[in-house]
Amino acid sequence: MDNFDLTPLRVGIAGLGTVARGVLNILLTRKDEIARHAGRPITVARVANRTAYPEIDLGGARFSTSLSDLTDRGDVDVVVELIGGEDAALKLVTRSLSQGLSVVTANKALLARHGNALFEQARQQEGGVVLAFEAAVAGSIPIISSLTRSLVANDIEWLAGIINGTSNFILTAMAERGEAFEDALAEAQALGYAEADPTFDVEGIDAAHKLTLLAALAFDTAVDFDGVYTEGITGITPEDIGYADELGYRIRHLGIARRTGEGVEVRVHPTLISKESMLANVNGVMNAVLVMGHASGPILHCGAGAGELPTASSVVADLVAVARGDAVHVRTGGNHTPILDMHQVESACYLRIPCLDQPGVFARVATALSEHDISIEAAIQRESAIHSDSGVSWVPIVIVTHRVSEGVMDTAIEALQRVDAVIGDIKRLRVEHLS
Amino acid sequence: MDNFDLTPLRVGIAGLGTVARGVLNILLTRKDEIARHAGRPITVARVANRTAYPEIDLGGARFSTSLSDLTDRGDVDVVVELIGGEDAALKLVTRSLSQGLSVVTANKALLARHGNALFEQARQQEGGVVLAFEAAVAGSIPIISSLTRSLVANDIEWLAGIINGTSNFILTAMAERGEAFEDALAEAQALGYAEADPTFDVEGIDAAHKLTLLAALAFDTAVDFDGVYTEGITGITPEDIGYADELGYRIRHLGIARRTGEGVEVRVHPTLISKESMLANVNGVMNAVLVMGHASGPILHCGAGAGELPTASSVVADLVAVARGDAVHVRTGGNHTPILDMHQVESACYLRIPCLDQPGVFARVATALSEHDISIEAAIQRESAIHSDSGVSWVPIVIVTHRVSEGVMDTAIEALQRVDAVIGDIKRLRVEHLS
Repeated sequence: MDNFDLTPLRVGIAGLGTVARGVLNILLTRKDEIARHAGRPITVARVANRTAYPEIDLGGARFSTSLSDLTDRGDVDVVVELIGGEDAALKLVTRSLSQGLSVVTANKALLARHGNALFEQARQQEGGVVLAFEAAVAGSIPIISSLTRSLVANDIEWLAGIINGTSNFILTAMAERGEAFEDALAEAQALGYAEADPTFDVEGIDAAHKLTLLAALAFDTAVDFDGVYTEGITGITPEDIGYADELGYRIRHLGIARRTGEGVEVRVHPTLISKESMLANVNGVMNAVLVMGHASGPILHCGAGAGELPTASSVVADLVAVARGDAVHVRTGGNHTPILDMHQVESACYLRIPCLDQPGVFARVATALSEHDISIEAAIQRESAIHSDSGVSWVPIVIVTHRVSEGVMDTAIEALQRVDAVIGDIKRLRVEHLS
Repeated sequence: MDNFDLTPLRVGIAGLGTVARGVLNILLTRKDEIARHAGRPITVARVANRTAYPEIDLGGARFSTSLSDLTDRGDVDVVVELIGGEDAALKLVTRSLSQGLSVVTANKALLARHGNALFEQARQQEGGVVLAFEAAVAGSIPIISSLTRSLVANDIEWLAGIINGTSNFILTAMAERGEAFEDALAEAQALGYAEADPTFDVEGIDAAHKLTLLAALAFDTAVDFDGVYTEGITGITPEDIGYADELGYRIRHLGIARRTGEGVEVRVHPTLISKESMLANVNGVMNAVLVMGHASGPILHCGAGAGELPTASSVVADLVAVARGDAVHVRTGGNHTPILDMHQVESACYLRIPCLDQPGVFARVATALSEHDISIEAAIQRESAIHSDSGVSWVPIVIVTHRVSEGVMDTAIEALQRVDAVIGDIKRLRVEHLS
């Protein structure tokens, strides 16, 4: 039936930061087109923020400095939570749902910590309340929709994503311009791609928040942020990037979730991937998520992972779904498969081992690895890379191994560190063969 | 509310070809997971096909050789139309909708011809009947979902897609192995990627069917297959691929839809695109669609464009949406912007002009172009490419122009063909700069 419902969906926006401004912009400038898609008008009824910004056009919405005005005045149908952080956001989302209001949020940290309870609360609530969060992962990329709608026929085997634009920008800059990490970070900060305190991005925490959600949706497991292995990119050097290049790889900061016979791997770390692979060709601040379904085969989703309008694009898509009544009611934790401890995870490894420049050193390293049943796929020991420090002549031996469990590799690295020709810390990165 | 509805969605499948078998496979082997996603069981109640295949497990569904059993027996809720073709499929879909049954189809030819009427019929029907068709475009890639849900906040500026895997396989093979078109086609046929009669694929008709649907969804225009400019890849030679490579381009068979101030361009043709662009790196039978939204920025969707399970993945996703009651009710033609005639379309062009190997010929060609206000961006005239036929020495002059309307270029090519030093047909291809 072709009904156009004249009852508007009344939106209350919490926050007036970048994304909130993007949402206002789209809802006000594309009013008619959005009403046509939604089958009814979507109006901004209220905006709440700690600070007023009189210069921002709220399109007639009531402004308040109190978040509770969004939930308690009876003039809002759906709350858009864009204040970020955990405590106040949790309170607002909980309150909204319990008042029978749907919620659209871009808050990955909140959902990574409290997703199970919040999804459950939404489902238990009378009246078809939903908690929608397309904007929480990878900005404008419809990856939540893909996992909750488009790929539901599939047994998802794994997914791998570049889901932090800051880290990808830094790694791309290091590779393209040979910059050190610190210089690439400074460049990212100058361009507004990295915060003054970049910890959340470069240490992988932001990516881990997002991966937590993707893994729960892909494998129907509980949202479990604490189960995610998280390693950032601060230890990556131009030397590593150079060796990776020589071996046919690029280094990308990936979130990887994979189902194995024993459980589910959920891990964020720098990863060597073939230069030919689709993810290796995602550069700069772009995000991308590659999902391997048993039926679909590999599906790549690629686009802007952050920014005012890209993130707002996903927020507004969720609002349209709420208005049409066709948003997905997410449930998590149907599958009790455990998240594997990192020791149980298997992957090929890249090792950079600083060794004395002596005959027979390579053989000793290879022997130490073979004693742990680790076999070597490729190795580099470049004469041109011989260093001389305080009269000691040394050279990095770089090795790519075949697949090995982290636990075995940990033990092997400990043993290697005790080899007297090994004169410094061994760098270990994972190598993945993603089709 | 967390209701699990025990009323099954009863599916009737029309056809028992490749995709139908994939759908049966997924619905039978993943019964429980699909019921969990759908909130209710999805059962195959009936299968109808001209021929019986007793070796195929129908999971207890009733088999019939009559399509009308699917619609007229009262034991089917949704018809999956996988018989292909136009006449019988049109009759079946029309009948299904008029009986109040939803329809899921992979039939791009049917929708490209009759989409407007069928979408309208579904919308006018009482009882929330939908016509879903994710599988009709680009196999497993959720591009219909993206345009009808995820990107609805956006003013779509353009989209460009590799939406025929056969053509992309052939162009990739020609580029990678230097093969002639005929040899690459034979290889595609041997591998099952091309039909014995490859016309639909290599002449661009299949891509035009799909592009027709994408353009209507992106710009809310009517589905208008006859308005699509369609040019296949049969005229592409290894020589063209070589020159394109030298100029920094790859040749891809693209479907392009773009909104301009005057209307909407909808065109399928071989296109030179920068080697660095995302679409240029989509190889083999893979499909990809790049959509430029004003808010989202560029979004690339990439995956398998055909095949039993990839296409079935999208059919089953549509069935789950029908079961949940959250499928999109598509409407087309809200926007009366005309489809532009190809003469009005502007693009940069690649010209390969066979010329006598004489001094001053390049200047005459350049002059002829400049008389039509066409400026040259790049040109190649390779001594090594000098041919000698029956004592006549000639060489191709290859030119990439700046943007120019097709109408002006048509006139310029006519004029160039009259230059006496031009001794053969001029090859013209379009060049696009897609971010």
